[in-house]
Amino acid sequence: MSLLGGIDLGGTKVQAVVVGDDLRVLGDARLPTPTTGGPQDVADAMAAALREAAEGHGDPVAIGVGSPGVIDEAAGVVSSARNLPGWEGSFPLAGALQHALGVPIAIGNDVNVATDAEFELGAAREFTSLLGVFWGTGVGGGIVLDSKPWTGRGAAAEIGHVVVEIGGSRCPCGRRGCMEAYAGRGAMELRARKLVDEGRKSVLFEIMEERGRPRLTSGIWKRALDRDDDLAHELVDRAVRALGAGVASAVNVLDVEAVVIGGGLGLKLGEPYAERLRVAMQPHLFASERPPAIRLAALGDLGGAIGAALLARRLA
Amino acid sequence: MSLLGGIDLGGTKVQAVVVGDDLRVLGDARLPTPTTGGPQDVADAMAAALREAAEGHGDPVAIGVGSPGVIDEAAGVVSSARNLPGWEGSFPLAGALQHALGVPIAIGNDVNVATDAEFELGAAREFTSLLGVFWGTGVGGGIVLDSKPWTGRGAAAEIGHVVVEIGGSRCPCGRRGCMEAYAGRGAMELRARKLVDEGRKSVLFEIMEERGRPRLTSGIWKRALDRDDDLAHELVDRAVRALGAGVASAVNVLDVEAVVIGGGLGLKLGEPYAERLRVAMQPHLFASERPPAIRLAALGDLGGAIGAALLARRLA
Repeated sequence: MSLLGGIDLGGTKVQAVVVGDDLRVLGDARLPTPTTGGPQDVADAMAAALREAAEGHGDPVAIGVGSPGVIDEAAGVVSSARNLPGWEGSFPLAGALQHALGVPIAIGNDVNVATDAEFELGAAREFTSLLGVFWGTGVGGGIVLDSKPWTGRGAAAEIGHVVVEIGGSRCPCGRRGCMEAYAGRGAMELRARKLVDEGRKSVLFEIMEERGRPRLTSGIWKRALDRDDDLAHELVDRAVRALGAGVASAVNVLDVEAVVIGGGLGLKLGEPYAERLRVAMQPHLFASERPPAIRLAALGDLGGAIGAALLARRLA
Repeated sequence: MSLLGGIDLGGTKVQAVVVGDDLRVLGDARLPTPTTGGPQDVADAMAAALREAAEGHGDPVAIGVGSPGVIDEAAGVVSSARNLPGWEGSFPLAGALQHALGVPIAIGNDVNVATDAEFELGAAREFTSLLGVFWGTGVGGGIVLDSKPWTGRGAAAEIGHVVVEIGGSRCPCGRRGCMEAYAGRGAMELRARKLVDEGRKSVLFEIMEERGRPRLTSGIWKRALDRDDDLAHELVDRAVRALGAGVASAVNVLDVEAVVIGGGLGLKLGEPYAERLRVAMQPHLFASERPPAIRLAALGDLGGAIGAALLARRLA
């Protein structure tokens, strides 16, 4: 059996898997993403996670990587990965990993490979067209049309930057009125902090301190909702409203059969919020009599790494 | 030489062309769309226009139709063409035209075939991906990806109903905050009338009466702008602002190489307004360092009929 490896490079963790011929996960490992140093330190952590995932299963013949930032797939170079330490410039990630692990490396966009995994193995197996919506720190997207990924000129599916309010809230990207300005966990935390500083009551930051976290993770938002925190409800409602309009807009353009919801917040809030998204989309859908299927990502946290392994098939 | 026919069925006019093997237009004719009667009367006018276009050139071997409404291409049936007289239900348009003209008939969506024509013969010949934006009574769209039309489940490219303002202005479609609610000529006329009823001054309706028109045509908007009418400027500015956000949102999803602007208002206002759209899109584009090319439709008023003739090739 020839094994494939997959590595999902995130801002907080590196998730690695090793899959067999049938694409089932044989081993997996997770390491924290280094917060100091530079790209070579990140590459070292990625190699270590992959070795740990492969332990006892044998060496993969090829490895795929899902990465944030701007990706030159042909050159294997990742640039402007601003959530990673010292990675404002360009780094030859494929070369560094090939050097460390001794096998060919394929690199793709993290959200695109996660979408491909849901399409091929996950929640959208029975469809031929799909929009993946990854609701986390930002709101990323991936597109499959006619059973093939659509990446445009390299920046398709940037659904977080669909405009839902001309001249609206400032987005972490610097623009105004983007869906992500309301729905991204990063923007939600900024707004929560501002409102608490202005005197609003909320358990959000108390939970954050109790749990020793430096920021409002998806789990903290979930706990605050479970404790019926007014501010958490208000900001999540606002996010769902923006997602409803923005995702419906993307569906009005693409007319895909299905929308798959993943990402930290999407997975943590789960089916009740997928249902709320369905309801929030409905008033904006052009073909409202036959809305797309809305599904939660079925591969969960491992989706990105599994999708990265799929990417490695073309090298195996 | 085997000729092809093309008919563009619009709310105000029926435009027919006959093209040769090289797809050059040999003959063309235009008739007003019947405003009374029913679908059979419209089909009669379409057949008459096509015969007039073909006169002196010989009979086409197949004819394509670009139609509004909901289209069942396989059955040749058009439903819910609400801008056409008595066409709320379904009508077998392909059968009626085949009966009248004696050759096979292919039917497609009016905006999609116009986009295909610009892709193959018009302003987007050198590109492989394209968004067509038809700015008229409504705002319609067409998509070409990887040199092939993308129609989704039949309702892709409904860019007029991309949301630019959650809870915003009421759209003629009944929803709120759609791009068309600000940029469609129909919505613009409703707003102009309301503001004039409330006491705003404007030459818009004076020009309309002078020219004996029942509504504010694209030419009337152009004349009012040329006469520096404040209200016309205000409403066209508002439309451009909405188009900037909505078209940029669609580009953030699709990442196409080019956007082609057509439709009555798009063609009448021309290059200065294409440039204004470029400027209005820029602050919303995710990949703002390499915006798509923005081009005016090169085939003008005949684009729809030429695109319809392209559709007929598969029957010839």
